[in-house]
Amino acid sequence: MAFKGALEDVTYGLYLITAEHDGRKNGLIVNTVVQVSNSPEKISVCISKDSLTHDIIMQGRCFAVSILDRDAPMKFIGTWGFRSGRDIDKFEGVSYRKGATGAPIVLDHCLGYLEVQLYGTLDVESHTIFVGKIVETEKLADGEPMTYRYYKEVKGGKASRYAPTFNDWETLKKLEAGKRDTPSLDG
Amino acid sequence: MAFKGALEDVTYGLYLITAEHDGRKNGLIVNTVVQVSNSPEKISVCISKDSLTHDIIMQGRCFAVSILDRDAPMKFIGTWGFRSGRDIDKFEGVSYRKGATGAPIVLDHCLGYLEVQLYGTLDVESHTIFVGKIVETEKLADGEPMTYRYYKEVKGGKASRYAPTFNDWETLKKLEAGKRDTPSLDG
Repeated sequence: MAFKGALEDVTYGLYLITAEHDGRKNGLIVNTVVQVSNSPEKISVCISKDSLTHDIIMQGRCFAVSILDRDAPMKFIGTWGFRSGRDIDKFEGVSYRKGATGAPIVLDHCLGYLEVQLYGTLDVESHTIFVGKIVETEKLADGEPMTYRYYKEVKGGKASRYAPTFNDWETLKKLEAGKRDTPSLDG
Repeated sequence: MAFKGALEDVTYGLYLITAEHDGRKNGLIVNTVVQVSNSPEKISVCISKDSLTHDIIMQGRCFAVSILDRDAPMKFIGTWGFRSGRDIDKFEGVSYRKGATGAPIVLDHCLGYLEVQLYGTLDVESHTIFVGKIVETEKLADGEPMTYRYYKEVKGGKASRYAPTFNDWETLKKLEAGKRDTPSLDG
């Protein structure tokens, strides 16, 4: 992509976004959490319209953010970041609790969490920016947060095809041409 | 603040946002740049409504992002992050060039830049989220991007009172009670 070089120097963390509506819960991994206001405190997160979690948040109007520890294993990231909640129950075997908003908060490999109620949304074509007003937070552990750079450079991680930063269209095209049942990568 | 602990583990970079409209140019330092879409590529940035740059972007509808090098000196950050363009010309003595959109692109201490045209905005009370479609980028240098954590923990930097992450209301209250001509901290 023409715009690849400089964009790769933008800094991100890595987070697990979870939500529940009408008995259906799901979650996915994103790199796009930002505090956008302090009076009152709000955060934003950008999520692919193709992900199941996107629709659950739209309907349930709240979500939780678990801030991932740098030591979170790739298997854990693989389940939450590269499998679809339409195919598997990502919460199986995972430690979580119901938050103040009703959202399920994942506690494994997390330094702390934020729980928000939806304040507004902005449609940016492939993705939606969700802004949430913080209603609850808790710091669970000391430690280094996982950064997107650490995930890519030290752990060898890749961007999900549903991440806003995804740009490996060549590989994707080959995968999609080769077989219809390509590995599901969405959240 | 009740929500302080976990929020401090959110990861950010540090960026210089610049814009020009009707012969008036300004810029400020933010920690809130995120790529939010890849088709086509867009970024978002969150800026205080009290800053001059906010108004210039609203009017000019384009802006540039310089990605700061980890070695950017605190004096440079002080000028762009803690002084107001209403009081000084921040571009004095600084190397910059006019971009494709007409926005002035600062080249000092920058690893690369992104230039965008405004796509949409979202009002989040104290701040506005600006979404811009990328029209030009260039990687200028190799090196480590400045992270917000590095700025705070290694360089001893603080949040501007206009950053969404600002939470030192006690000190601010004391400053404002003490004298009317407090140091200007806005961009």
